[in-house]
Amino acid sequence: MSAKIKFQQSGGLAQITISYPKRFNAMSRAMWRDLRSIFESIQCMPDVRCVLVFGQGAHFCSGGDISEYGSFRFQEASLREFHENDVWGGLSAMLDCEVPIVAQISGNCMGAGVEIASCCDIRLAAETAQFGAPIARLGFPMAPREAALIVREVGLVTARQMLLQAAVLSAAQMQSRGFLTQVVADTDLQVQSQAVVKKILTLAPLAARQNKRTLRMLNSFQALDYKAPSTTEIEAIGGAVQVFSESAYAYANSTEHQEGICAFLEKREPRF
Amino acid sequence: MSAKIKFQQSGGLAQITISYPKRFNAMSRAMWRDLRSIFESIQCMPDVRCVLVFGQGAHFCSGGDISEYGSFRFQEASLREFHENDVWGGLSAMLDCEVPIVAQISGNCMGAGVEIASCCDIRLAAETAQFGAPIARLGFPMAPREAALIVREVGLVTARQMLLQAAVLSAAQMQSRGFLTQVVADTDLQVQSQAVVKKILTLAPLAARQNKRTLRMLNSFQALDYKAPSTTEIEAIGGAVQVFSESAYAYANSTEHQEGICAFLEKREPRF
Amino acid sequence: MSAKIKFQQSGGLAQITISYPKRFNAMSRAMWRDLRSIFESIQCMPDVRCVLVFGQGAHFCSGGDISEYGSFRFQEASLREFHENDVWGGLSAMLDCEVPIVAQISGNCMGAGVEIASCCDIRLAAETAQFGAPIARLGFPMAPREAALIVREVGLVTARQMLLQAAVLSAAQMQSRGFLTQVVADTDLQVQSQAVVKKILTLAPLAARQNKRTLRMLNSFQALDYKAPSTTEIEAIGGAVQVFSESAYAYANSTEHQEGICAFLEKREPRF
Repeated sequence: MSAKIKFQQSGGLAQITISYPKRFNAMSRAMWRDLRSIFESIQCMPDVRCVLVFGQGAHFCSGGDISEYGSFRFQEASLREFHENDVWGGLSAMLDCEVPIVAQISGNCMGAGVEIASCCDIRLAAETAQFGAPIARLGFPMAPREAALIVREVGLVTARQMLLQAAVLSAAQMQSRGFLTQVVADTDLQVQSQAVVKKILTLAPLAARQNKRTLRMLNSFQALDYKAPSTTEIEAIGGAVQVFSESAYAYANSTEHQEGICAFLEKREPRF
Repeated sequence: MSAKIKFQQSGGLAQITISYPKRFNAMSRAMWRDLRSIFESIQCMPDVRCVLVFGQGAHFCSGGDISEYGSFRFQEASLREFHENDVWGGLSAMLDCEVPIVAQISGNCMGAGVEIASCCDIRLAAETAQFGAPIARLGFPMAPREAALIVREVGLVTARQMLLQAAVLSAAQMQSRGFLTQVVADTDLQVQSQAVVKKILTLAPLAARQNKRTLRMLNSFQALDYKAPSTTEIEAIGGAVQVFSESAYAYANSTEHQEGICAFLEKREPRF
Repeated sequence: MSAKIKFQQSGGLAQITISYPKRFNAMSRAMWRDLRSIFESIQCMPDVRCVLVFGQGAHFCSGGDISEYGSFRFQEASLREFHENDVWGGLSAMLDCEVPIVAQISGNCMGAGVEIASCCDIRLAAETAQFGAPIARLGFPMAPREAALIVREVGLVTARQMLLQAAVLSAAQMQSRGFLTQVVADTDLQVQSQAVVKKILTLAPLAARQNKRTLRMLNSFQALDYKAPSTTEIEAIGGAVQVFSESAYAYANSTEHQEGICAFLEKREPRF
């Protein structure tokens, strides 16, 4: 019943369940850390050929666990720690995964849910699934690395719509935006994602690992890894990024941020 | 009745009207300069939370004001001045805007119209709106910075189709290409864009500004700002770009360029 | 009847036929070299304004000529030679082409077919055309430069689906993924692609060449050309790429690679 990431391996398949039923599988800080250690351990399992990620019950993941937010979001240092270590720790462990990851998405796929799905390679959704990152209602912006990830996977136009308009999009829309590889009837989701997994398990496993390395290398030249790898490049372009990055969490104790979170917790409309 | 950019602020909303009814809201040089100063002044209005851009009457913007072209396009220096200062001055002021920009697009959205829409964050269109940049009929290519902007926003495939095939695309096509966030019946356009604006006005304003800074930073690592920020990088990659950029307007006095513009003004088919 | 690339020029149009009917127009090594020399010769034909690429008979191109694979794929040096010289030689000559290239796609467009189509600017397909790169069934990954090209043109999500899931996509799907500019009834394909060609032949030819140079310059800052152009940049980012690139073909003599190719040639299911 508690908040956790479940892991189960059988043969070449690793199954990962986002499980926090009470909160529609919202991600707590502990769950982000679990996600990281599970994906790090998969790195040491040469027999795994495919990872399947899904949510316990009717939802994929409804976002972050807002009930925890008051304890760390209003101070810059702990806010940075949360985003750069907990959240990015989990997401980057997924991005470093050497084998294909399939996302099986139903119900709410919001905020952290979209970020986790963005680290998956093949994305199937039930036709009633819903997608968004309406954190502007909660009074805060998306962290830079997470925004880079989202932009790369959902596209710039959809990212703007999610962040600046707090839009919630349907599975059909997310398929036409190029995010989902397949949308199926709710009742067919499990069968269809199992079919994809079964197919991947028959394909050449070393070729898959090499393809994932190639795709990762191509992406590393784009926006995602904005820590420049050498002194030369830090001088060239890293300066501006560093300045930007240093101030990315200065909003921690802003009135707006506190109003957004508090209004949510007090179940009232925020006044910005 | 004359060519101008109108500006109106009420509360958190800034409304900008592209107005040159006689020419379906084509952009004159003076209008590009107006666009720049209006967006620069918005930068100094901390109360503005959203900008809405639309055209006077039935059209968004039909392109550049071709009647002016004979006076400056056929000399390299004045052509460069036009693209790099007038046009890019206006577009880059829009790109620097700190608050969400909503485009409400009806009728013709061609050339300069697509460029202006490309600087907006949320793009709604009427179902009869039409999009393109058929300047190959006028005998000239797109300026490099403008092409970089278009490619980023409409995608490489659509940009090629507009530039190399002089294709005109429907609102439905531009939605499926990922450019438009919403397509609505012509009669619903104003109501729907007002609903989006109203929604944005209720969202956290500092979060929006921070999100726009983040998205701008991510994009600055891509093609748009191809003036490298340091000596080191200029040496590394700037050289080739500089050479390219220096010759970008050498076509000014070409037979082809003059034939395209003159044929348009003389209302006859060009012979290339 | 034999394997060849046919070339025919008439007026401003150069027509290129991929012709190896016995193997649904699969690309042999000799055909890759022919493709390169034909596109290099087009560079020296100032009168050409448009190139049309299509397959002999019912298919565009079904992939590589697997019957040749045993002779060079299982040794790292000859495998590298094949991908970096033969294949990339042909593809990069297409990418360097100064005039618009139209792809007229019917039937199978697989592997090498998707790569060749990715070098074209305007892509029309018959509604029954099929797209994919199911080389994971053959036991090998995609070469880095080719993967960069595919990712840029079909998008990251579709590239993953092709490479990691060995998915085959329909023309309708490839249009919604933004790869195809137009999908038409099978019986209309030739007429429609001729209409596009005819249109391009009427447009300003120097503007087209300049637009292609601009688009090429924009892309060169992205993933495709990952050989850095200067010592400075090689130090900065080239190191990691070089290491990656050096090991890109180490899989040549792997059991998996040999099993995939041999199973295909022996017409049996591979066991990975």
